[in-house]
Amino acid sequence: MIQRKLEVIYQPFDRTTRVPPGTTLFSAAHWIGLPIDSTCGGRGTCGKCKVRVIEGAAEVTTADHRLLRKEELDGGWRLSCQARIYEDMVCEVPQLLRVPKAATMGLGRLVILDPNVRKVYLELAEPTLEDQRSDVMRLGDALTAEGHDMAAGVAVLRTIPRVLRDSGFKVTAVLAGEQLVALEPGDTTDESFGVAFDVGTTTLVGTLMNLRTGMAAGVLSTLNGQAPFGADVISRISHGMNGPDSVLELQTAVVTTMNTILADLYEQTGVSPARTYEAVVVGNATMLHLLFGIDPSPLAVMPFTPAFMEPLLIAAREVGLDIHPNGFLQTLPALGAYVGADIVAGVLATSVVREDKLRVFVDVGTNGEIVLGSAQRALATAAPAGPAFEGSQIRCGMRATEGAIEGVQLGDTVELQVIGGDVRAMGICGSGLVDAVAQLLHVGLLDHSGRMKGAGDVPGHPLADRLIDVDGVRAFLLADGVFLTQRDVRELQFAKGSIATGIKVLMDILGVETKDLDQVLLGGSFGSYLNPESAKIIGLVPPVDLDKIIAVGNSAGEGAKIALLSYRERQVAFELPSRIEYVELSGRADFNDAFVSVLQFPHLELVG
Amino acid sequence: MIQRKLEVIYQPFDRTTRVPPGTTLFSAAHWIGLPIDSTCGGRGTCGKCKVRVIEGAAEVTTADHRLLRKEELDGGWRLSCQARIYEDMVCEVPQLLRVPKAATMGLGRLVILDPNVRKVYLELAEPTLEDQRSDVMRLGDALTAEGHDMAAGVAVLRTIPRVLRDSGFKVTAVLAGEQLVALEPGDTTDESFGVAFDVGTTTLVGTLMNLRTGMAAGVLSTLNGQAPFGADVISRISHGMNGPDSVLELQTAVVTTMNTILADLYEQTGVSPARTYEAVVVGNATMLHLLFGIDPSPLAVMPFTPAFMEPLLIAAREVGLDIHPNGFLQTLPALGAYVGADIVAGVLATSVVREDKLRVFVDVGTNGEIVLGSAQRALATAAPAGPAFEGSQIRCGMRATEGAIEGVQLGDTVELQVIGGDVRAMGICGSGLVDAVAQLLHVGLLDHSGRMKGAGDVPGHPLADRLIDVDGVRAFLLADGVFLTQRDVRELQFAKGSIATGIKVLMDILGVETKDLDQVLLGGSFGSYLNPESAKIIGLVPPVDLDKIIAVGNSAGEGAKIALLSYRERQVAFELPSRIEYVELSGRADFNDAFVSVLQFPHLELVG
Repeated sequence: MIQRKLEVIYQPFDRTTRVPPGTTLFSAAHWIGLPIDSTCGGRGTCGKCKVRVIEGAAEVTTADHRLLRKEELDGGWRLSCQARIYEDMVCEVPQLLRVPKAATMGLGRLVILDPNVRKVYLELAEPTLEDQRSDVMRLGDALTAEGHDMAAGVAVLRTIPRVLRDSGFKVTAVLAGEQLVALEPGDTTDESFGVAFDVGTTTLVGTLMNLRTGMAAGVLSTLNGQAPFGADVISRISHGMNGPDSVLELQTAVVTTMNTILADLYEQTGVSPARTYEAVVVGNATMLHLLFGIDPSPLAVMPFTPAFMEPLLIAAREVGLDIHPNGFLQTLPALGAYVGADIVAGVLATSVVREDKLRVFVDVGTNGEIVLGSAQRALATAAPAGPAFEGSQIRCGMRATEGAIEGVQLGDTVELQVIGGDVRAMGICGSGLVDAVAQLLHVGLLDHSGRMKGAGDVPGHPLADRLIDVDGVRAFLLADGVFLTQRDVRELQFAKGSIATGIKVLMDILGVETKDLDQVLLGGSFGSYLNPESAKIIGLVPPVDLDKIIAVGNSAGEGAKIALLSYRERQVAFELPSRIEYVELSGRADFNDAFVSVLQFPHLELVG
Repeated sequence: MIQRKLEVIYQPFDRTTRVPPGTTLFSAAHWIGLPIDSTCGGRGTCGKCKVRVIEGAAEVTTADHRLLRKEELDGGWRLSCQARIYEDMVCEVPQLLRVPKAATMGLGRLVILDPNVRKVYLELAEPTLEDQRSDVMRLGDALTAEGHDMAAGVAVLRTIPRVLRDSGFKVTAVLAGEQLVALEPGDTTDESFGVAFDVGTTTLVGTLMNLRTGMAAGVLSTLNGQAPFGADVISRISHGMNGPDSVLELQTAVVTTMNTILADLYEQTGVSPARTYEAVVVGNATMLHLLFGIDPSPLAVMPFTPAFMEPLLIAAREVGLDIHPNGFLQTLPALGAYVGADIVAGVLATSVVREDKLRVFVDVGTNGEIVLGSAQRALATAAPAGPAFEGSQIRCGMRATEGAIEGVQLGDTVELQVIGGDVRAMGICGSGLVDAVAQLLHVGLLDHSGRMKGAGDVPGHPLADRLIDVDGVRAFLLADGVFLTQRDVRELQFAKGSIATGIKVLMDILGVETKDLDQVLLGGSFGSYLNPESAKIIGLVPPVDLDKIIAVGNSAGEGAKIALLSYRERQVAFELPSRIEYVELSGRADFNDAFVSVLQFPHLELVG
């Protein structure tokens, strides 16, 4: 259910946006990339984000009373992070007094450096008989004066009296949001790190980020330690169904993998775990359930119900993650059982649904996760593709590791691109499969129904001798011992057909056509290797101009990094589920209809 | 610093109160005992506490938008728990539709049963393809419909999928505030317990409360397991100074004592720890520091700085308290290093500072904690009394255990009240000491300077033969081997002088005299045993009419129980530090001046 939207105009920029009722002026501005000054990132504590309301009413809030003078309130000034929009409004934004520090992330996005973790150096007055405030209050008051709220848990409280007195009351407070993570003697503001994790079913990527500079200190990836329990989410869930111990086993495996990455990152960079205060973790719903030790089995059976889709913020020690002992772990929200936090991160990194451009974001894997839309309206779905794109269920299929054919060019001869360079081709991975099928279509060895020609059908064709018979099934010989069978082509047809159908269903709901599409974004690691032209030829993506098809790399990891570096962007990620309508394909009549229609390959002249 | 106050009038009751700016209409009404309907206890989620603002402005808040209709907003209706007072106001409170369940607690106070822990039975719709909400969202939506917010941590999240599916989605949600503590299969709303702890330096008292009926299920007290580390807070702190291990040792000792009480309570009552969801704990600052494993040493040295005075809410498992594994432990705030959460609880239980009556609340012990005031203005201080009232530093002094003289009546003979009844007197405890000195004054064997008469000074006095000489010091023989020496009297003079001075300093600051006092409340276990007349004769308390001196029993424990049973009262406790000015006696010139003047005993004719 999408609510009616309200219009806000920001002066002097004359920028307009339409937002759901209840959105703050601050976050509505941030949504369209319009920077408003803020130290606290929109928590209502620093008082820097004030704007003047020219039209429409904004109530005076408690924070306004605390941080603005009476004349300012009378003049219509409000803290934009507290002012909620309940009618159409016009407001005036003061000129920025300083250029905010920013980093380029994701799809060429400039992200304002405004991490949730902040370090504040304080020189506190020592207690006297006239000033007997508690240590906590002394710290809190000093932080309030700097525009920060503070809450301290027991673990950090235990360290406070000693640190204050040993350091002569010159300390650095480390805040994650308003939570005091640590109090460190002296000025340690230069050393502030966090880690972004993309927890994939196959691969985990960890990036240690310098929160002060916005630069990556190090990045490492390794296989998910859950691999022995199965290659895909379904087999992991099946293992988890053996009972709580099995869920714990899977949890331990993934946490161990994360800690291995962390240990290596710390060693490589010289950064200390004690200076690493926060982790932002994204992954599909199954991966996040298992990370927290939550039984994922309802995800695997109709009607596919996750235990949670909400963003979780927990003490890192609750899962045993090796960062600062009082550090936090933050996840991003999911859109549905099979459109997880990794996709939300991808949407964050690519700004799909925040711009006027109509775009479709596709992350191809065992499931094809699809987000279609613009700032006006956006939809998401997951299309079950099966394992073909992962190189599974393919006769000579293999993972994208050394020896895998990842690229195919057919002409008079066969040109192969093999992972590892000058090594013998041992099989074919997903991107090679797509390439091979596209090229076979291109050179006329496959017809658009997907039927492979026999050698006899194409006499004189330079590649006719490559058309062979394997166990009574037609096949195309790619390299010595590596071939593509008719059955493989059918597998690919089903896989791409499912994703193409998902896209089509969403386009139909939105009432748009291929010509309306401004861009097709291919996400995920598979998207990076996929040849856009081949994707278009086989009909995996709509037939837009080739320059509109863009591989966006590990957008999930980028999104996690953005959420780590920017509290405002993290808030945007939290809002995405309320901005994107989730469409369940199972049981939809139009899915089945469309599926049949896109199972075939497009006629080449239509692809252009 | 006390801010200017604003006036609010509640109609149709025509009740007026004056509150600091920013107070909500709900809590201002509650402060003066005026009940406004509410299911959520003032969290802005149930929408039942609406009032109509007749004069003054109350902004429309986000919760108002969510829970009230436009016509209501236009008519001036606001949720009183969200409407903050920034100018003088008049508002109309709708008639209560139901009589709230209440229990009589503390000093005859009627406490509305409104515990922070709430149980809500839910029959949830099962997930379908059309309704794929996550388990958390399904629960949260159902709770929202009942007027409750919900947040779920990872530990309880792990249990949710199984409990929902095993129970056919018929479950009881257990909320502590908005935190989901547990999800239980079926309807368990009948079983809801919490525990109130008064952690004294000497004795711990635990009361298991039925949160549904407001009745105590069981109560037990036992000696604090820290006793081997010293009898008073200073010796405990000294032990803690041996390093973190010693602090841990003290923490373990007190937690073990609490768990022993809990185990016995569970056994006695048949209540399960799994149905005991919250603990409210009060105690002096040192006890609470040690409970949390926080180094209390800065409390013991000038300028007496606590690490925290704020109320803490932590997971009970963080200190290893044996209640529900996801249950919470809540402390009340302190007013100063030596006016702790136990005193705040006492103030809560006795309503001092919430009524128009001018009262002084005194908790006599090693320190005399004093709160003086009314709803208009209130002050608090701690006067160092030394150990005399605990029976220490007294020649024949002992704790109030079997064999201790706790009451003395002098006339022609000596009548003694001995703890244990018909046992031999072995020593004298604090209340006996006060009685003995008062009676000696009464029968003229002590003069008002505190000098003890010799047998030769009072020939013919029926008790003259009791005046003896012990090691060259005058003494009065109370019983065989038990006597009171001149030096003991001096000790008591210093002790009572210090507390009397504290009261006098506060009365001077407030500009009130003895005749203005409506009541003198004696708190703490010592206060229960103290003979009010004796307290008055020795000048421990101001010379008010005897019927104005009231022993209020274990007011700390009562306050803890009230905070357990009523979320609104808990909020009142949280507000007390901002309502009561703390006065530090150390280094005050008027303390020393007054001390000299009250060191003597009052002339008997003044005591009346």
